[in-house]
Parts: sequence; structure tokens; C-alpha cells
Amino acid sequence: MSELPGDAVGVGLVGLGTIGTGTARILLEHAELIRERLGHPLELVRIADLDLGSDRGIDLSGFDCSSDWRDVIGDPRVGLVVELVGGTGVAREIVIAALEAGKGVVTANKALLAHHGFEIYETAARCGIEIGFEASVAGTIPVLRALREGLCADRLEQVFGIVNGTCNYILSEMDEHGEPYESCLKRAQDLGYAEADPSFDVDGTDSAHKLAILCGLAFGVQIGPEEIATEGIEKISAVDIDYARRFGFRIKLLAIAKRSEAGLEARVHPTLLPCESMLARTGGAMNAVEVRGQKSGPTVYYGAGAGADPTASAVVADLMELARSRKLGPAAGGVRVPPLGTPTLRALPVRRLEDLEGEFYLRFDALDRPGVLAHLAGALGDRDIGIASLLQLEERRSEAVPVVLLTHRVKEAALRAALAEVARLGDICSTPRLLRIEREL
Amino acid sequence: MSELPGDAVGVGLVGLGTIGTGTARILLEHAELIRERLGHPLELVRIADLDLGSDRGIDLSGFDCSSDWRDVIGDPRVGLVVELVGGTGVAREIVIAALEAGKGVVTANKALLAHHGFEIYETAARCGIEIGFEASVAGTIPVLRALREGLCADRLEQVFGIVNGTCNYILSEMDEHGEPYESCLKRAQDLGYAEADPSFDVDGTDSAHKLAILCGLAFGVQIGPEEIATEGIEKISAVDIDYARRFGFRIKLLAIAKRSEAGLEARVHPTLLPCESMLARTGGAMNAVEVRGQKSGPTVYYGAGAGADPTASAVVADLMELARSRKLGPAAGGVRVPPLGTPTLRALPVRRLEDLEGEFYLRFDALDRPGVLAHLAGALGDRDIGIASLLQLEERRSEAVPVVLLTHRVKEAALRAALAEVARLGDICSTPRLLRIEREL
Repeated sequence: MSELPGDAVGVGLVGLGTIGTGTARILLEHAELIRERLGHPLELVRIADLDLGSDRGIDLSGFDCSSDWRDVIGDPRVGLVVELVGGTGVAREIVIAALEAGKGVVTANKALLAHHGFEIYETAARCGIEIGFEASVAGTIPVLRALREGLCADRLEQVFGIVNGTCNYILSEMDEHGEPYESCLKRAQDLGYAEADPSFDVDGTDSAHKLAILCGLAFGVQIGPEEIATEGIEKISAVDIDYARRFGFRIKLLAIAKRSEAGLEARVHPTLLPCESMLARTGGAMNAVEVRGQKSGPTVYYGAGAGADPTASAVVADLMELARSRKLGPAAGGVRVPPLGTPTLRALPVRRLEDLEGEFYLRFDALDRPGVLAHLAGALGDRDIGIASLLQLEERRSEAVPVVLLTHRVKEAALRAALAEVARLGDICSTPRLLRIEREL
Repeated sequence: MSELPGDAVGVGLVGLGTIGTGTARILLEHAELIRERLGHPLELVRIADLDLGSDRGIDLSGFDCSSDWRDVIGDPRVGLVVELVGGTGVAREIVIAALEAGKGVVTANKALLAHHGFEIYETAARCGIEIGFEASVAGTIPVLRALREGLCADRLEQVFGIVNGTCNYILSEMDEHGEPYESCLKRAQDLGYAEADPSFDVDGTDSAHKLAILCGLAFGVQIGPEEIATEGIEKISAVDIDYARRFGFRIKLLAIAKRSEAGLEARVHPTLLPCESMLARTGGAMNAVEVRGQKSGPTVYYGAGAGADPTASAVVADLMELARSRKLGPAAGGVRVPPLGTPTLRALPVRRLEDLEGEFYLRFDALDRPGVLAHLAGALGDRDIGIASLLQLEERRSEAVPVVLLTHRVKEAALRAALAEVARLGDICSTPRLLRIEREL
């Protein structure tokens, strides 16, 4: 076991996957730059991973490697532990054990923080130890720092954005090439943008995890991912993307949180955004988050939401911040910005989707017979649901004709009731496609 | 003199103009929120301004007011001093005196930091005191924090953006309404987006100040605003905006810095940007800054670059950060992220504009006679300057016809030589309009 120079802060890395390898690479390649900026070295001293045999393109011979994460935490040279194991099982054990051993912790694990964040923040506060998790939301983009520091003097009202690169890549490809969901997903997998099992990305779970973290920081509220109404992109078809575009919209998977007197809105779903908006223009696998505050107004943060290098860059930035705090002495420990893990975190009622008002995109596969449009319009009109635009298309799909319309603002419950009435009338061949519209910027 | 509660940090405010009043208002309106997030109160205790009589819409009766800034620094209750006087004279005295008295300093004064930043950062480091200046660049947008913290593990290569809201408002209005510069400037003044004397904004000086600050943080280099090649928007005409648009570009005043082996590029000038880029789409008085790093890739930060509330929100966020450090004890003092005010700051040769390569927009007012176009094309071709697009317009302006063209990449010196040759040939009636093109995102 090599000795650590007296002024260095030692880093232990648990989990040598894509981001772990990227983190090791930055610590090695940028060692001089980091030393210069910190005033002392930040040295990777120990690594744990179950698979130490694979070639990852970096030379591990200088490090003590082990398959047991306990070796990392037990190493007296290690002052900071990076958890990049993923998941909510052993990752939780690692993080809690590291905090209790007095080690600073950096993690990119959004599932862990979404499910066990409050236990972890409380443990960190109790132990007087800092935890960095910038990389858990929107990869390289320092949006958590913006919420914790840059905007901390303001009362924030909304935070929403594109926080899943996989979904954004698929939707952007569908939009650009008019291709079906399946082939774009396949391409995302081939290019490494999507996992072999992409469920957590495409069904919105990953975005909901990130939204739970954002809600904690933006509003100081404790919310579990299961409280977030979540809908994925699996059912988005190329025709919806095409029709949306004819109305001047693009479809993006958004994570949306808004705080008002009535409570908290927190939802993840495919959303129609005006083509010219910044979020609509966020293409490829990029992420973008918009925050709206009473005094600060709208601010937008754009960048790479995934990928080894961008995400690892955020991990190492957190390590540098924690190293700085450790150097400044134990008094400087503790979670720097209190909203998380302190008594100021509070529960706020989460509003039901049905109670929210909004504009909607509806696509019906209507039977091609007289009176169908009148029935549709009637069912909506009876509930005071105004039609903003309507597109009845020549293109026939077997026996059905597509009818696409945008509503004026309406409570979702009223719209659902109207759709039930439409279904009862028997004029449509399948469940209508309902998508929510958000206008911004 | 009222006493300060034992756990409060006292704030003294010097300069009660627009931003000063906004700062006082946030400290009062958000007092409870700030106390909750900090764990202790942040209390405005003393104000200095030469004019204490004007009604600013806030009640100053609870504060000790004075016309001498020395009273603020001398007040033992004041732990943090906010300098919002502006300019580089007395503001410098105030900041240095506050640091030397052991008070944390927050300022929004870009001119001061651009001209005397290094003296100030060194004083802060010597005194072990922090200085916050997030509000000095791009108002409410926490882009300095992004550079100092979020991206601190990365080697940054470029930082560029729209950092002057006045110019962006004028150019956006010219673009939207096809109006001349003068009437849009007048409107900006009527709406409070431009000062009565707008020189420092429209001639690019203000943007150069901000770029000097950005260069220090992004690259760790010390550069004075006089080293930045600076061109304003005063000569931009509505026809240039119109022609640029026909080629798919918008004109924005950009501050641009790039670091390479060859040295540092640092320049401020009107720039043609592809219409669809994020910066081109930054309208009104908004600001946007893009950063490019080796590992992090491109990130963009968008928001309000001016205005009392947005800027004051950044001032108070800095106050909260400094208050936190003070509470954590003197060990936590000192400039948190070292690139500024430490030996790591270095000089880097600034490259001459003539040596840079780029694409250019050129507008000639050519005489309406045979052979003119051949002469023009010949002068360019002789120096291997390729023409990417050319627009010769019917619209006659008195005896001249406008010829607009975009070049391929070329060294500016070669282009200048070709333009001298064109002038010598006597085919054009006025100095050609030369604008630089940047492609990004």
C-alpha cells in the first residue's frame, strides 16, 4: 500500500463501470490542473469493483484494487468515497457506511437519492459530513449547484426539463427522420445511449427519480418517486410527432414540478412544446432544465446529461469541493446548503393530475361515417371544453380516419369525462391518444 | 443603533441605486426563507448612499443610514459589505477597505473587477476573506459558479456569449421590427434597458469587462479589458440584419474567449450566428453564455442579465454563501476556488485579430457599372479567399447597389488586404461592412 503525500486528499472509488472509469481517467489526466486549482493533490488511491479483470483502457496497476467495497472505506488514506455502483441495495450500504466512517461521499446515483435521499441527507448532517450528488441529475450540467447556491436567495416556483438523454435521443431521432419508436430505440442501444433493458429510461422512472431530487432542492419538499405521476415515451408514435409538428410543437419527455398555494405539481410525461422554445430545441441526447423564480425569473441550463466524460466531470467537481471543505477543517463539514436533510424540509400535498388545468393534444382514430365529428365536438362542448385547432386528415388508416385536435385550457378530469363519453358513443376504433401541452419561453 | 441578534450576520449596503434597492427588498421580503435556508438570520443593518432622500418604494426607517460609506465598514455589527456604488474610483476604496477590515465583500461591479480585479483578489486572499461577484456577469445567471465549481474539474476551451442586455434588446428589436438602430436605442432608454448615456453598453466596453472576468475564471489568465479587441453595435444597420437573416443568421453582440496552444483569443464584436442556435434565439434583454470543456462538452446558461430583482437575487445568494462561510469559522474564509488571486493565475499571450481565421460577412455598396463584381471576386480570389454565398440585390441605394457575400474560412489579415485592394480599385462608394461569423450548437 503506497503512502499518500501529506497534503493530498485520498479518493476511493467503488464501481468501475462507464462513469467510474471516466472518473478515474479525469483524476489521472487532470491531476496537475486539479492540484493547481485546489492547492493540493486529489489522489485516487483505492478502487473496488466485482470485475477487476476487464480492460477499461486505463492502467490500474498503480492502485490498490479489491472486490470488496469495505476495503475502500476501511482504507485510512481514503478521505472521500465515490459510489458509482448504482441501484438502491448495496449502494445504500456503501454510502451510509462511508458517511458513518467520516468519509465525504460523492454519488451519481439518482435512484438511491430518490428513494433513500432523506435517510442519507440526515445521516450526512448527523455525521457532519458533506455529500455531493451533482452528477445524479442532468450529468455535467451544474443545475443542482444553481438551485443550492446561485438561486438560493429566491423563492422558486417551477423547475422542469429534459433530464433523460435516452428518451431525448429517441424522440429527436423520431422527429428528425420520421422513423418509428422501435427502430430509434434500437439505434440508441447500438450507440450506447440506451441500455439493453431500457425500461427505466423509456418508462419515465429515471426522470421521476431526478424530479424527486430537484423538488427537494428547489422547494425543500420531501417527495418520493411513487408520488410522481409518470408516463413514458413507449406509446409515442411517429404520427403524433408529425401531427404535433403541424401545430407548431415538438414532443419531449419532460419532468415538471410547480409549487403553488394549492400544493405541489410533480409529473413526468411526453409533452408538446412550442417548436421555438429552448427545451423543444434541445436535440440528441442533451438535457436542459428550466427554473423559474420570483426574483430571478426564468433561467435555463443546457448540456450533456449522460456519457462517461461529462458525468465524470461533475463527479470530480464534487470531489474537489469536498476536498476543499475537508482541508478547511471539520467545522466546514456538514451539508453546505441546508434545504436537504434539515428540519426545513417539509411535506407538501401533491396535486392529482385530474385536478390540474392545461391544454391537451388529442388524437382519435374515428370511424369514417357521418356525424362522428359532431359527436366528438358535442362531447367536448357539453363539458365546456374549447377546441383551439382541429385537423381532420385525408390519410385513411384502414377503416379509421385520424382526427387530431388541441384543446383550450381545461381541467384534466373534465377532459377524461368527455373522453369516456366519446368512447361510449362508439365512433372511435381505439383509445384516444392524450398528450399534455406546456408553453414556455 | 439597534443591536444584532447573537446568531445573525449583519449586512451593510453601500449604494442604494436600482440593484441596491432590489437587494434591500429581497433581504426584507425573503428574510424568513433566508433564515430557514441558512439556519440563522441575515440582517441588513446599515446603508450608505449620497442620496438618502429619494423615495425608493422601501421603508428605510429601521436602518441606520449615512452618506459616508466609512460608517458602514466601521459598524461593528456589519460582517458583510455590499458594494453597489459602481465605477472604479471610490468603489475600489470601499472594497479594499472592507476586506482589510475583515468584512466579506459582495459586489456587482464588473468595471471594478475588470480593471482592479487582481489587486482585489490578492487583497482578499491576503486577508483570508471571501469576495462574491456572481452578479457582475450575466446578472441572475449563476455562470460564475458554474465556472468556479461545476466545471472546475475540466479544462475549459471556450467561453462566449451574450452578456449585455441593452445591446441584445436593441438588436432583437431591430431584427423583429426592421427598425433602425436609433429608434430601438430610444425605446431601450424609455423602457429603462439603456442608460441616458449608453456608450459603455453599445460600444462593447461593458461586455469586454465581463469577458475579462470570465477569462480569469475559465482559463486562470489575467487579462485587462484593454487587451480585448472590442467593437460595438452602433454601426449595425437594419439592412445588415435583414441580409444576415436571408443567409440564415442573426446578429448578436458576442463576447468570445478561446484558449489554444497559440494563445488566448478574447474579443467582443457583433457576430452572425446561425438562426437556430441557442444564442441566436436569446431575445429581448436576456443573456446566455456557452462554455466548452474537454470533458464536459458544451453547456449553456440562459437568464436575465440585468434588472433590479434578477441581479439582486445573485447579490443575496452571494451574501448567503459568505454568511455560511463566516459561520463555519475563519478557517473556511479565503477565496473558495483558487483560480483567481493565486499564483496559478498566469499571463497568456493574447492573439491579434488579424491572425485569427474565420468566416466573414461583407457588404459592399458597389457602383452600378460593368465589371464591378469581377473586380470584387478577383481581389478576393487573388488571396485565396473563397466566396461561400453571394447576394447581389436589385434594390438600388442612390447610385450604389449592395453586394453582400459570405466568405469561407480565411485569416482576417488576408481579408483586410483584399478589402484594401477593393478600395483601391474605386468600385465601391463606402467602407465595406465586415462582420464575423461564428457557428456553434
